Amino acid sequence: MAGMVVIGGGAAGMSAASAARRVAPERPVIVCEAGEYAAYGMCGIPYYLGGIVDRAETLLAYPPEVFRDRRGIDLRLGTTVRELDTAARRVTVANDGGAETLDYDTLVLAAGADPVVPPIAGIDHPRVFTVRSLASAAKLRTLLDSGSVRKAIVVGAGYIGLETAEALVAAGAAVRIVEALPRVLSTVDEPIAEVVDAEVRRHADLQLGSRLDAILDGATGPVAVVDGAEFAVDLIVLAVGVRPATGLLAGAEKLPNGAVVVDEGMRTSLPGVFAAGDCVALPHLVLGAPAWVPLGPAANKTGRVAGTVAAGGRASFRGVVGTAVVKVFDLEVARTGLSLAEATAAGIPAVATDVESRSRAKYYPGAAPLHVRLVHTPDGRLLGAQLAGREGAAKRIDVVATALHAELSVDDLGALDLAYAPPFAPVYDPVLVAAGRANRSEGART
Amino acid sequence: MAGMVVIGGGAAGMSAASAARRVAPERPVIVCEAGEYAAYGMCGIPYYLGGIVDRAETLLAYPPEVFRDRRGIDLRLGTTVRELDTAARRVTVANDGGAETLDYDTLVLAAGADPVVPPIAGIDHPRVFTVRSLASAAKLRTLLDSGSVRKAIVVGAGYIGLETAEALVAAGAAVRIVEALPRVLSTVDEPIAEVVDAEVRRHADLQLGSRLDAILDGATGPVAVVDGAEFAVDLIVLAVGVRPATGLLAGAEKLPNGAVVVDEGMRTSLPGVFAAGDCVALPHLVLGAPAWVPLGPAANKTGRVAGTVAAGGRASFRGVVGTAVVKVFDLEVARTGLSLAEATAAGIPAVATDVESRSRAKYYPGAAPLHVRLVHTPDGRLLGAQLAGREGAAKRIDVVATALHAELSVDDLGALDLAYAPPFAPVYDPVLVAAGRANRSEGART
Repeated sequence: MAGMVVIGGGAAGMSAASAARRVAPERPVIVCEAGEYAAYGMCGIPYYLGGIVDRAETLLAYPPEVFRDRRGIDLRLGTTVRELDTAARRVTVANDGGAETLDYDTLVLAAGADPVVPPIAGIDHPRVFTVRSLASAAKLRTLLDSGSVRKAIVVGAGYIGLETAEALVAAGAAVRIVEALPRVLSTVDEPIAEVVDAEVRRHADLQLGSRLDAILDGATGPVAVVDGAEFAVDLIVLAVGVRPATGLLAGAEKLPNGAVVVDEGMRTSLPGVFAAGDCVALPHLVLGAPAWVPLGPAANKTGRVAGTVAAGGRASFRGVVGTAVVKVFDLEVARTGLSLAEATAAGIPAVATDVESRSRAKYYPGAAPLHVRLVHTPDGRLLGAQLAGREGAAKRIDVVATALHAELSVDDLGALDLAYAPPFAPVYDPVLVAAGRANRSEGART
Repeated sequence: MAGMVVIGGGAAGMSAASAARRVAPERPVIVCEAGEYAAYGMCGIPYYLGGIVDRAETLLAYPPEVFRDRRGIDLRLGTTVRELDTAARRVTVANDGGAETLDYDTLVLAAGADPVVPPIAGIDHPRVFTVRSLASAAKLRTLLDSGSVRKAIVVGAGYIGLETAEALVAAGAAVRIVEALPRVLSTVDEPIAEVVDAEVRRHADLQLGSRLDAILDGATGPVAVVDGAEFAVDLIVLAVGVRPATGLLAGAEKLPNGAVVVDEGMRTSLPGVFAAGDCVALPHLVLGAPAWVPLGPAANKTGRVAGTVAAGGRASFRGVVGTAVVKVFDLEVARTGLSLAEATAAGIPAVATDVESRSRAKYYPGAAPLHVRLVHTPDGRLLGAQLAGREGAAKRIDVVATALHAELSVDDLGALDLAYAPPFAPVYDPVLVAAGRANRSEGART
């Protein structure tokens, strides 16, 4: 019995392996993980870097023994997959002990996504880091703990760039963020990005519309060349994006960016090959098309579905609506569905309604401004929302996410019976205020 | 032109009057309010008592001038309605200046609810208070500020009783809560009530299954007789419930408890008579029947609908799902839909699924236990939920409230794409954990 091979020991891969062992305890499961850690919370890395989480091991969902001894998974760390022959159902793997071929009945590709490293001079300087793996984060944390990082540059002002900048500030560094686009956080529209921009500038230098051209070897550390100007720093962190790690999977149906297309059982177009996690395209329920939205919850869920179905069980993944939240210094920034830019790009006639409300009753201490943008069609189809504020944004977005799953209209959204007490919300919740305004107005077109 | 008369100047009444003036600026609107304040946030009273809100006026949504001068509403404070003749469309009102009759085209009854005062000996002792009106709260606050309240008894362990107990503790009093039922907070089921019980006992004495039999006149203040034992205290607050103030409305269709039945335009069964706020029964969308759930958001919304429709405009109120949240000392307690007890009482075959999850990623500081109870039918119809925890309960309940509006199943609930980042939620949100468990288990029957 050849059993299952899982490529990648992250959240998706270990969820797949665990689910498969539950469904079919008699069938062997081998997980090949190139790194030294399995099943860690990648989203926790910035908090480990910033010292909020003390030990790298704290980020592990479970230690390797749990997978090996309790779940009976053959978890192989430090093991790279060199070749995948989907016709012969065979992988060639290599580790310190040499190379080996493994036959499989079913394969789950859960290799995740790789950080983009721009091909510029000096990029291999030892003080240039990416923060996608716990191993490189551990090295970076050692460097931060040594006290030798006083000035740092973070390249990229997306989720990871901003979280990393916050972590480095927490670790005592003066941080400059360099972003090629003219604005931060391209997953939200301009009015919300402006709120984020102001918060970032309270804590770090923010240089928009600028590029890292090269990295020189300075006297005490790297020198970043940004738009021709030189910045001598102690550390450069690259957070310019990630791309699906699907190079092994030749011949499978993919999106132009390489994300593997799967059905609701996480089957790829190749027989016996499943995929899950950050390397797959998922049904976007608002867009009505596959989209690449590589985030933690879907990685866990799609891993579980892939493992269950691959092992002969029944499960399905319905899709995502694009919900995400990020802490940016003292701000909560959340989004779901389509931004106005995304809706417009998809050819959907969309407008946006912006309101500023409050997180609590106006007389209750701690009430903070809450910016709400609803994205909708002129005739009231709900498409998405974005929230930003010092509190009350992170989980309030879930109301709109739920409404999108249920295909509620803006009118329906405004009729919801939401929780009220002065310490937690105004009597008209900010989501209701926004929906009410959207019902009465024509909305903004940018 | 006789115009509109509104009985009651609370949230519902002032919303109705304001809406009517917007819809039909040419038609006069008179609001008769028995008290000295209009449009105040009744839910803020405990925070005013506890000193979190400094001045009574802070609780006013708007000062009277805004209603009178900017909105053109004839707002009459200190004005009691003595008689209502719905056949003649006439009310008799009285204030310091004497009695007067007012003719109307349309009437909006927004008289709210009156606190229940048990008919026991000594109940009119000057140190016995209810906390339904801002005027009596102001008197009580003056008493608290004088420093003469060291020991207090609160009768009733519902929302208002617990909020008031917290306020009195914040004001420096030692508080004993006396509740006739064998448990606190009957709007949630036993497992959640137990969490609340433990929190209350960290801050106050809690005496369950006990009755206030009489109040004696002691040397320094009232003496409460509770199950035969005497407690000399400085203050007694009654919070044993409220009842709809609908005595004026003879002949209208009502629930057995007196709540007025209305249609979606807030019309009562009497021609020209509308009702809104805490005195009406509202469509309960889960129960599929009118129910009396007197809470702030519906008071505001139904007031607006009543005023709009009464003035000739178009609006409708679809109903409630029974969402509520309360802060109990350091605990957030939230509920929506039907409790298991309510579902069972309504003849719905229901079970409950309980999980304990966390408010944040387990490694993120501040992650607190979050108790989640889902109420559902054995075949997966979602009926309600209850949450309790130090954080993360208050607005998370809105996901389930939204799901109930949309008639999502437990299975649908488990498939939601909810926001995740370590500071705000575990990767599987507690609501998803509960839904997943409910899908796999048979649930509890108590």
